[in-house]
Amino acid sequence: MKQIDGGITAVPGVRAAGVHAGIKAADTKDVALIVTDTPAPAAGVFTKNSVTAAPVIVCREHLSDGRAQAVIVNSGNANACTGEVGMANAQQMAASTAAQLGIDADLVLVSSTGVIGQQLPMDKIENGIQAAASALSPEAGADAAEAIMTTDTHPKSVAVEIEIRGTPVRIGGIAKGSGMGAPNMATMLSYLTTDARINPQTLQTALNRVVDDTYNLLTIDTDRSTNDTVILLATGHANNVDIVAAAGENYEMFCEGLQFVCTELVKMLARDGEGATKLVEVQVIRAKNRSDAENAARAVAESPLVKTAIFGNDANWGRIMMAIGKSEAEFDPYQVNVYLENYQLVKDGMDAGYDENRATALLAQDSVLITIDLCAGDTEITMWTCDYSYDYIRINADYRT
Amino acid sequence: MKQIDGGITAVPGVRAAGVHAGIKAADTKDVALIVTDTPAPAAGVFTKNSVTAAPVIVCREHLSDGRAQAVIVNSGNANACTGEVGMANAQQMAASTAAQLGIDADLVLVSSTGVIGQQLPMDKIENGIQAAASALSPEAGADAAEAIMTTDTHPKSVAVEIEIRGTPVRIGGIAKGSGMGAPNMATMLSYLTTDARINPQTLQTALNRVVDDTYNLLTIDTDRSTNDTVILLATGHANNVDIVAAAGENYEMFCEGLQFVCTELVKMLARDGEGATKLVEVQVIRAKNRSDAENAARAVAESPLVKTAIFGNDANWGRIMMAIGKSEAEFDPYQVNVYLENYQLVKDGMDAGYDENRATALLAQDSVLITIDLCAGDTEITMWTCDYSYDYIRINADYRT
Repeated sequence: MKQIDGGITAVPGVRAAGVHAGIKAADTKDVALIVTDTPAPAAGVFTKNSVTAAPVIVCREHLSDGRAQAVIVNSGNANACTGEVGMANAQQMAASTAAQLGIDADLVLVSSTGVIGQQLPMDKIENGIQAAASALSPEAGADAAEAIMTTDTHPKSVAVEIEIRGTPVRIGGIAKGSGMGAPNMATMLSYLTTDARINPQTLQTALNRVVDDTYNLLTIDTDRSTNDTVILLATGHANNVDIVAAAGENYEMFCEGLQFVCTELVKMLARDGEGATKLVEVQVIRAKNRSDAENAARAVAESPLVKTAIFGNDANWGRIMMAIGKSEAEFDPYQVNVYLENYQLVKDGMDAGYDENRATALLAQDSVLITIDLCAGDTEITMWTCDYSYDYIRINADYRT
Repeated sequence: MKQIDGGITAVPGVRAAGVHAGIKAADTKDVALIVTDTPAPAAGVFTKNSVTAAPVIVCREHLSDGRAQAVIVNSGNANACTGEVGMANAQQMAASTAAQLGIDADLVLVSSTGVIGQQLPMDKIENGIQAAASALSPEAGADAAEAIMTTDTHPKSVAVEIEIRGTPVRIGGIAKGSGMGAPNMATMLSYLTTDARINPQTLQTALNRVVDDTYNLLTIDTDRSTNDTVILLATGHANNVDIVAAAGENYEMFCEGLQFVCTELVKMLARDGEGATKLVEVQVIRAKNRSDAENAARAVAESPLVKTAIFGNDANWGRIMMAIGKSEAEFDPYQVNVYLENYQLVKDGMDAGYDENRATALLAQDSVLITIDLCAGDTEITMWTCDYSYDYIRINADYRT
């Protein structure tokens, strides 16, 4: 596996565009379009929030046959809590994009991210769709990555080339955060492309599996948006033997590549969380089972007290013990070990006699790994988050005003 | 029901003390002692965190017969994650207090609050116990309220006189926060006294019920400490007809008084949450059931995005919709109504056409009531929390260093 340039357009058969349509106040790109040259096997994973934005409902409908050919995205407005008008507008985005591309509307997926509760400015959206269709290019993956941003401080893009039985296959992806709860209140969006030959059902199974181990283990501030969306399109331009079932070596190779791309994007999202000064990886090892591992890791990764201590470079391991204790994971408190970058802070649930200055220095890095050994089984998990800084408060206290 | 002065020592048969023993660095009181004149029916509710501090384990043992005569409390050190030495020290605190008072050690309850993972300075603790025993007074409730504080900015104390079939009965209480996760990492502590004649089982049932509707609906930052403790002692000095069962008018009158005392203390705790600039009451009405009501209220009260918006006086109702949507409560998003101090922001899940300036003015008060009408049933609940400010980060990023 090797990393390559080009993001989503590193994949043959994919064109993209990112244009400025004036939906966001700033003079920045705010409409993205991603198109495959033919109708492609497509898979999606969407927010579980019961207050579901209109575009997510349209995506679910249009993905029911496992095929799609285009994704149209606007930033600056989430089209959530917008009622029937909002639904009609989301459908209109698909219809207008389809008309521009000369394809069926149900081959078009739709995303929106931005403020909740306001209707889309449809005149600007229509102009944006037209401009994006004209700008489509097999080199414009970076423009699309830029156009989907809200408060992200930089675009997020990655691509790899893997080999499936000697045949090169490409997987590319872009994502925006910056937090499940961006100040815009919406959204984590990610679009993935591949030229693998793979059928829709297997593509969806692979995406579900990888999302469970990546995007679903990302937490910025516990909030989950109304618009979260991950979409994967497969152009089939590669010459690999068709992957027709979710088993076997070819499938595993594909999942490994997809896992790499998504993990890299998730780390970029965590590191660029609102106000974040560092990436925090929380690894739980020797948990009794997956659910205990995830609960313990989540309790630590979401604890405001842990996150503020990390911001302050304070190796306050008592807060980690508190967090796993409230998680309902099963373990013996007096068997727990805690490490910071493999340096032991806690031994058998008590102070390991570590050096405070060394711990502080380890925390002062721009990437921090906390390992929690529960001594209760053989399951492990890694979650990704960031610290809580003054800027998190500043960004979120003042967003709309 | 009328409020009276004196806190826990407003109750006949109760003496208290609060002294400085040098456990905390600052020159402040750090050992509290509460004593009843005879062994009293006693009830307790303790943290559900599986990393349980030694004093909590001692309390559970000593309360097994439903009787107690004294509570000894130190602040400045939580005696949590301290292993066998910590257990022995907690037992020693009970034994030393018992020796000073000339009573059995199993009549003494123990609490500690402060830093996790360090052993208690037992010489200072012993001196503190001796000093507190000498200082016991039926007027010193305020000293005890002060001695249990960690980062609280002021002591919290309340007392009422109720009538049970014409007979006056008193209930008093003190509490400290300031947050389930104080920077000290520990703890919410509350001690309640009453002169009601009531048997231990009924006292415990009443306490469980009231704690469920008060302390368990308080959330500062989602973290739950290793030491959380609520204890209620009943001296029996009042002349009310014995309350011998958890039913009937006398029992209900007692619960109502207890509920008032605990609600007042919980509001004080929320308002004095770390870095808080205002008290926030989150009321969910017309939920399908208690669990849905609590889940929805908790999702709003614990959302960092909601809490930072309230700090910024930003009526960002989209974040409230997002929070209830992720709560797993059942409701139709397009039937939800949201009010700020009875002023409607959201009607049928969409913008009610409210005036932004008026909403901002309502949020700028030092106490904010958010009402969320789920239109899904007839259950309601109120939770108490505070906003998230820069000071929350400052206090918690720098605590130990």
